[in-house]
Amino acid sequence: MKLGFIGTGRMGGAMVGRLLAAKHDVGVYNRTAEKVKPLADAGAKIVGSIADAARYGEVIYTMLADDTALEDVVFRQGLLDALPKGGIHVCAGTHGIPVIRKIKEVHAAKGHALIAAPMMGRPELVVAGTAGVFASGPAAAMAKCKPLFDALGRKTFEGGTDPEAATAMKIANNFVLGCAMEAMGEGFALTRKYGVDTSVFYDVMTDGLFNCSAYKVYGKIMVDESYAKVGQMATLGLKDANLALEAGFLAAVPLPSGNVWRDRLVGAVAHGDGNKDWAVMALEQARASGLA
Amino acid sequence: MKLGFIGTGRMGGAMVGRLLAAKHDVGVYNRTAEKVKPLADAGAKIVGSIADAARYGEVIYTMLADDTALEDVVFRQGLLDALPKGGIHVCAGTHGIPVIRKIKEVHAAKGHALIAAPMMGRPELVVAGTAGVFASGPAAAMAKCKPLFDALGRKTFEGGTDPEAATAMKIANNFVLGCAMEAMGEGFALTRKYGVDTSVFYDVMTDGLFNCSAYKVYGKIMVDESYAKVGQMATLGLKDANLALEAGFLAAVPLPSGNVWRDRLVGAVAHGDGNKDWAVMALEQARASGLA
Amino acid sequence: MKLGFIGTGRMGGAMVGRLLAAKHDVGVYNRTAEKVKPLADAGAKIVGSIADAARYGEVIYTMLADDTALEDVVFRQGLLDALPKGGIHVCAGTHGIPVIRKIKEVHAAKGHALIAAPMMGRPELVVAGTAGVFASGPAAAMAKCKPLFDALGRKTFEGGTDPEAATAMKIANNFVLGCAMEAMGEGFALTRKYGVDTSVFYDVMTDGLFNCSAYKVYGKIMVDESYAKVGQMATLGLKDANLALEAGFLAAVPLPSGNVWRDRLVGAVAHGDGNKDWAVMALEQARASGLA
Amino acid sequence: MKLGFIGTGRMGGAMVGRLLAAKHDVGVYNRTAEKVKPLADAGAKIVGSIADAARYGEVIYTMLADDTALEDVVFRQGLLDALPKGGIHVCAGTHGIPVIRKIKEVHAAKGHALIAAPMMGRPELVVAGTAGVFASGPAAAMAKCKPLFDALGRKTFEGGTDPEAATAMKIANNFVLGCAMEAMGEGFALTRKYGVDTSVFYDVMTDGLFNCSAYKVYGKIMVDESYAKVGQMATLGLKDANLALEAGFLAAVPLPSGNVWRDRLVGAVAHGDGNKDWAVMALEQARASGLA
Repeated sequence: MKLGFIGTGRMGGAMVGRLLAAKHDVGVYNRTAEKVKPLADAGAKIVGSIADAARYGEVIYTMLADDTALEDVVFRQGLLDALPKGGIHVCAGTHGIPVIRKIKEVHAAKGHALIAAPMMGRPELVVAGTAGVFASGPAAAMAKCKPLFDALGRKTFEGGTDPEAATAMKIANNFVLGCAMEAMGEGFALTRKYGVDTSVFYDVMTDGLFNCSAYKVYGKIMVDESYAKVGQMATLGLKDANLALEAGFLAAVPLPSGNVWRDRLVGAVAHGDGNKDWAVMALEQARASGLA
Repeated sequence: MKLGFIGTGRMGGAMVGRLLAAKHDVGVYNRTAEKVKPLADAGAKIVGSIADAARYGEVIYTMLADDTALEDVVFRQGLLDALPKGGIHVCAGTHGIPVIRKIKEVHAAKGHALIAAPMMGRPELVVAGTAGVFASGPAAAMAKCKPLFDALGRKTFEGGTDPEAATAMKIANNFVLGCAMEAMGEGFALTRKYGVDTSVFYDVMTDGLFNCSAYKVYGKIMVDESYAKVGQMATLGLKDANLALEAGFLAAVPLPSGNVWRDRLVGAVAHGDGNKDWAVMALEQARASGLA
Repeated sequence: MKLGFIGTGRMGGAMVGRLLAAKHDVGVYNRTAEKVKPLADAGAKIVGSIADAARYGEVIYTMLADDTALEDVVFRQGLLDALPKGGIHVCAGTHGIPVIRKIKEVHAAKGHALIAAPMMGRPELVVAGTAGVFASGPAAAMAKCKPLFDALGRKTFEGGTDPEAATAMKIANNFVLGCAMEAMGEGFALTRKYGVDTSVFYDVMTDGLFNCSAYKVYGKIMVDESYAKVGQMATLGLKDANLALEAGFLAAVPLPSGNVWRDRLVGAVAHGDGNKDWAVMALEQARASGLA
Repeated sequence: MKLGFIGTGRMGGAMVGRLLAAKHDVGVYNRTAEKVKPLADAGAKIVGSIADAARYGEVIYTMLADDTALEDVVFRQGLLDALPKGGIHVCAGTHGIPVIRKIKEVHAAKGHALIAAPMMGRPELVVAGTAGVFASGPAAAMAKCKPLFDALGRKTFEGGTDPEAATAMKIANNFVLGCAMEAMGEGFALTRKYGVDTSVFYDVMTDGLFNCSAYKVYGKIMVDESYAKVGQMATLGLKDANLALEAGFLAAVPLPSGNVWRDRLVGAVAHGDGNKDWAVMALEQARASGLA
């Protein structure tokens, strides 16, 4: 399939690599042409503008860092106007419900389809072909894009015909993770006060009910207190928490565990740990318990 | 080893079976002798009283339903007085910190050792030899009892020399589970409001970060809404939540996720679901979100 | 009216003074007779035991520090057995729902009536005649005791025929106060971060919507940070919070504001402020916000 | 003083009335000139555009419904460009921290001063001269505007030199109120479960520690369940809760009571009560307790 791709950072670059490997024809754009040289070497076409990318094929894929960048690309840099009638915008990246809702409406008014298709997993997993894809949007557009999703990940989680569904799944998955991390932090603080070594309670959890990556990966960071080696910064975790609570607000869903998660990260920021790994929640919980 | 065993219900019975299979000499007591007939057939000796059980060997094991039963056995039915100086009381079962603290002190005054050794896993797992054992208490007593723990489970999680440590691990493990279930319930409610089928979000969780029994077992109940088939009743889940918050209070550890867990179960009881499976938290969350 | 009175500490002594001033015939007991000398000088009769106090008149009043003291007096020191059939036990003091429920039942079995009648206000207010009385219990007993309540306070808040009602009112009033204090602490922390002096936000609150003693008295302590001058210790505030959450649990009422109140006090204890005035919640909130 | 005024709804109209009564020269603008006829009759000058209002005097006052309206007036309808260098923008109304921060910066770049001066109290209180004024901004501008604040209310609460301070005070005052209402609702639910009539617990609160308008006014609505007579809609209360939590997030202040307040309103919306008076929180709490 012929498609344009905007947003060729680490994650976007890995995605383009997968699409090229699956023999798709990908037109990429970057303000600094040099930056997409490796993708060009791998077979991508370089186009001269966002509008050109939007006109390159039947689909325009965006993988942007945040809502501001997405709105900028869609409204101010020409994606919306350049995309032909009948075109499909597939929006990867973790965005909030409001921006997806807004873009869905403007695309609909132009005769476009919007699919939200955020990724599950880090860039390394995308490269390895073990990432997942959340996806939802109008049925015909979804059918057309299926080969792209198949190229990008090992599995696609389809949420139906509204792009808000995939957005919500991505947000909720992060939410369940954040809450699990918060509960782990509380469990560590509680058992420490009763003299239990963190590595022992880590074994309890991961050997038994919680023998899965969420608990193993983040529990390990908490045991090692290796918060300085940052996977995702606490401030970005807080952004995810805010997205979840906003989504809950808009859909009238109280998320009390989400409040706890968010407040722990707010506390971490208050104590100067905002740029540590977000597992620093466990340190902040320890601090709240008089342990740090 | 020669030991007495009190509390031969489903869990206790399974435990005695494992101990006998490992060639330990177990003296069991039950008010209704007939009830321990199967254990006698398997090699257990039947003794005539709790005091006799306490005098039967070097160790007296108790597997009792709650704190009230434990205090009754220890203080009113003679365990404390009958156990010889130097004897070891191994206390399985899920008990609160206060009762363990109290019993620890009275045993110490009599020259006994108290080990807390609650089980990880249901009776079926004990029978299968795949359960775990949390254990902590005075070092010499722990060393002596190691063969018993080895007989009972596949792995022992040792928490140190204070029996409160193993108690806290058991409570904290339940706590992390309850909080995970609450967060799942919130995630299901959130995604449902955005049109996502619960089975899809179940796949998202269990295929990815949460590929472990806590999420698979309880998430499945939530998807199937099979709350009438009760593993653990909501009111017992609430008892666990209360034990956790009490342990937190006594050790000065705020447990905000625990508050959320507890309140969800309180709400379930308020709405008449107290005798459903405790995964009914997800239904209560749906209700709070206007979905049920 | 002729009545016995047990518990002649600061609060009980002030109460007996009011009862004597209203010409009631009060028999008081104290282990150390000397301690009730001032009351004897004011007209009280000194009796030789708790049982004698319980037999002294138609009513036995207790004003005890906590549930343990109350159970001791009722069950182990003879109040229950000595009180004649048809006698009335009026239980002042702040007690939990479970103990009141338990005592209600044993009294009923003996043909006694139990009235719960905790006081609203500190001893000084009782002396001044401006305290209030919460009261509930069987109608006939309530009617008989009305003159006592009238003597003790300026107003009686009647909760119906079950002594648990007055207990709940007392607990709930403390609860609303604790939650107000917590919210004040949060408001102070929030405005401080935006450069507002605490005395200015104090004026905002108390000059406007919150022109009442709860906000004036405790807000003032927060502004002055005079936590070392202890009215009620943080650990006692925490006891009140626990009573409230227990009452909520027993009646299936989620109390999320109560959780927040309790956790703030737990945090204060964790940071070594348990024996400060319970308004130290504001300091603990400041600490959680990186301000202290 | 000569000043322009934009936003002449109920609140703005009452404010202009006070300013005119104090002999200030006020130029008002409204898209529909007819709507400001009563103000013209009272002495206001009618100007033809927002830009004209901004040029009318030394100060431009805005009293707008929300952040969107404020940004529209400032950025798109010409206030920012028309206000002369050295001019002062006094921004009344309840706005969020981000918009005040943003406007503060653009004004500073143009050589303007921004004062935030939200009102305390409803329009009736403004008319009666008993409202309050929160105010903060650059010292010289504050000094110049003092006569305006004196005309508008009985008292000005000054927060310093940053307009965010007054914004934060307004938000925090609403916050303390919302949390008080939530705690009242919890107190009512708790005591109801123990058989206490809501009017009795209302008396307890308002006769004692909480003898102030926050508890009297909103407690009365809860007792009467007169939620259909709307002072402030639940959805607007929710907007206030969101402003508070956003302010907390931006300043790194965890506001757990605010989470509880917000979630209760989210629940009210989920159950179809979003357009009732925001005291409907008590009904939502009752519902959560199985009482409604």
